[in-house]
Amino acid sequence: MRVRNISVIGSSGIISDDVKELAEAVGKYIGESTFNLVCGGRDGVMEAVCRGMSTVKGKKGSIIGILPGYDFDGANSFCEVVIPTGIGYARNSIVANSGDIVIIIAGATGTLTEAAFAWSYNKPLVAMVKSGGIAKELAGKVLDYRSTVPVYTCETIDELDFTVKKIINENKDEQI
Amino acid sequence: MRVRNISVIGSSGIISDDVKELAEAVGKYIGESTFNLVCGGRDGVMEAVCRGMSTVKGKKGSIIGILPGYDFDGANSFCEVVIPTGIGYARNSIVANSGDIVIIIAGATGTLTEAAFAWSYNKPLVAMVKSGGIAKELAGKVLDYRSTVPVYTCETIDELDFTVKKIINENKDEQI
Amino acid sequence: MRVRNISVIGSSGIISDDVKELAEAVGKYIGESTFNLVCGGRDGVMEAVCRGMSTVKGKKGSIIGILPGYDFDGANSFCEVVIPTGIGYARNSIVANSGDIVIIIAGATGTLTEAAFAWSYNKPLVAMVKSGGIAKELAGKVLDYRSTVPVYTCETIDELDFTVKKIINENKDEQI
Amino acid sequence: MRVRNISVIGSSGIISDDVKELAEAVGKYIGESTFNLVCGGRDGVMEAVCRGMSTVKGKKGSIIGILPGYDFDGANSFCEVVIPTGIGYARNSIVANSGDIVIIIAGATGTLTEAAFAWSYNKPLVAMVKSGGIAKELAGKVLDYRSTVPVYTCETIDELDFTVKKIINENKDEQI
Repeated sequence: MRVRNISVIGSSGIISDDVKELAEAVGKYIGESTFNLVCGGRDGVMEAVCRGMSTVKGKKGSIIGILPGYDFDGANSFCEVVIPTGIGYARNSIVANSGDIVIIIAGATGTLTEAAFAWSYNKPLVAMVKSGGIAKELAGKVLDYRSTVPVYTCETIDELDFTVKKIINENKDEQI
Repeated sequence: MRVRNISVIGSSGIISDDVKELAEAVGKYIGESTFNLVCGGRDGVMEAVCRGMSTVKGKKGSIIGILPGYDFDGANSFCEVVIPTGIGYARNSIVANSGDIVIIIAGATGTLTEAAFAWSYNKPLVAMVKSGGIAKELAGKVLDYRSTVPVYTCETIDELDFTVKKIINENKDEQI
Repeated sequence: MRVRNISVIGSSGIISDDVKELAEAVGKYIGESTFNLVCGGRDGVMEAVCRGMSTVKGKKGSIIGILPGYDFDGANSFCEVVIPTGIGYARNSIVANSGDIVIIIAGATGTLTEAAFAWSYNKPLVAMVKSGGIAKELAGKVLDYRSTVPVYTCETIDELDFTVKKIINENKDEQI
Repeated sequence: MRVRNISVIGSSGIISDDVKELAEAVGKYIGESTFNLVCGGRDGVMEAVCRGMSTVKGKKGSIIGILPGYDFDGANSFCEVVIPTGIGYARNSIVANSGDIVIIIAGATGTLTEAAFAWSYNKPLVAMVKSGGIAKELAGKVLDYRSTVPVYTCETIDELDFTVKKIINENKDEQI
């Protein structure tokens, strides 16, 4: 039976200690939930969220990295399932569409492609607003005519938990 | 020998008369230049820009539609070269990367994925600011750390011509 | 830490009872090993191999379906991780490249694209020869100049086990 | 108005003088027809067919290269329209699906992925049988249950011309 996915999108490369700590806490939260984690499989926010989830003993979901390149070793060391797509950054569309819910942490234009894809695919989006970047920019906004529900804004893991439960509850008759 | 490409990205579906007129004028401008036109091949801004280019007798470049689906007949009737990718909206990455220059006309989140891809691929971006939508939103902005050159802002075809020549001149030693 | 993947490629649609039984046995074998199962996530051989793996209590790996379309519910009911790529049959390249080892069971031209991709990506290929189709056609063959090691031929699960261990042993210093 | 496409698929890298001569003749034939040429845009058969078409003065169609990588300069120097997809060898699916007709010249497993995709997408396939490789292997064969019309076999440009006209004539009420 399918385990639902939370996709986490955010900055690659070097990130601040605050963002790292937040991403790890989000990963830990996902590990304690019943969701798989889907992400781009690389460094920065992706690595931090994978590391956070990996610390949870007896977790139900899997840690999944969807890579742009062809090699398994492009993945951070916390991914359990590595899918080396070989399709470059077009893989951002796959990361966005694979989430039942998509969480934004910090991020630049790569993250923006994923958030915009997620919106156009009618995915519920949650912005961890204190992380800055694309998360801060999109929090609370209606991105276009496709939906009237804005990007959810969360400051804490408690608020994230509340929002995730609300999203699931509102969609319980649908596929999610 | 390769003919350089201008990618035009913008709204699908129903567009206002003003946006349609502007998109046709941009298409006519490209037809009178030495560039190919690359776009998503469908309706709305894409159709209008293709129609505009198709009116230019003796044009040098081709009118190219890169479709999301598998069927040739998903293209508007002004495309001369149709590439039915079958890869869905991941094709937005291809449209963005195929431009030596990328022009934004109006647009919603689909266009935003293309603009954000174009920026992350270091493509010069030009926003036809009066068309509203994503063009207006991004005009004059630096989207992230990858470049210090903002999205160029143009109000008229004369300004577009000036900007295109400036971009080519500044990049003449490079691939573009 | 990454769990290694075995990709299974083969017929979609209606399959014979013999092929179904074989695919289920292969799935059970993978479930009893330390590998993830990656497949196209749909019906036919894909569903049978997923069903077989799902019967193994306490299995280590995950059952992963990489779909061509955008919807989660295109997956068979035994997939635990569903990645709806939305990129159509270009996803066959991803299924092929995601395997540390690729096993062929029956199959037609869709499977042939995956086997040929796997070969061109230097993946070890194993054909369950008695299943017929592409498996029978490619068993024991050198497909082109890229390698001198032919497609491995197996008749039984015991032979599959022997072959998988041999492949891992020979590649133990490499990424696999 | 759309110009119909002929996709040519075949060996990359070093090719024999005989294959080069044949590929150039096929390119010249396409240049003298009313079709665009779509190919993978690189060296070997792709370069030879582009070169052949480029020698035709006043040709109607365009020479189009669909590249795996992100850079324009991965294309051979005879391509007029370059689409740098960035999606790696998943672009083989696009090359196959973009042809109203698909011609095979020589080829190894990369070409095999394209031929098998073309068959599964119901594209008419023509094998230039004397070029060897995949062309020789598939000539005259029915590849699977999807069609009863075998891969057409041609030895000469005259036979190719006859076959192309026959295909168009038989499909004249359809999209092709």
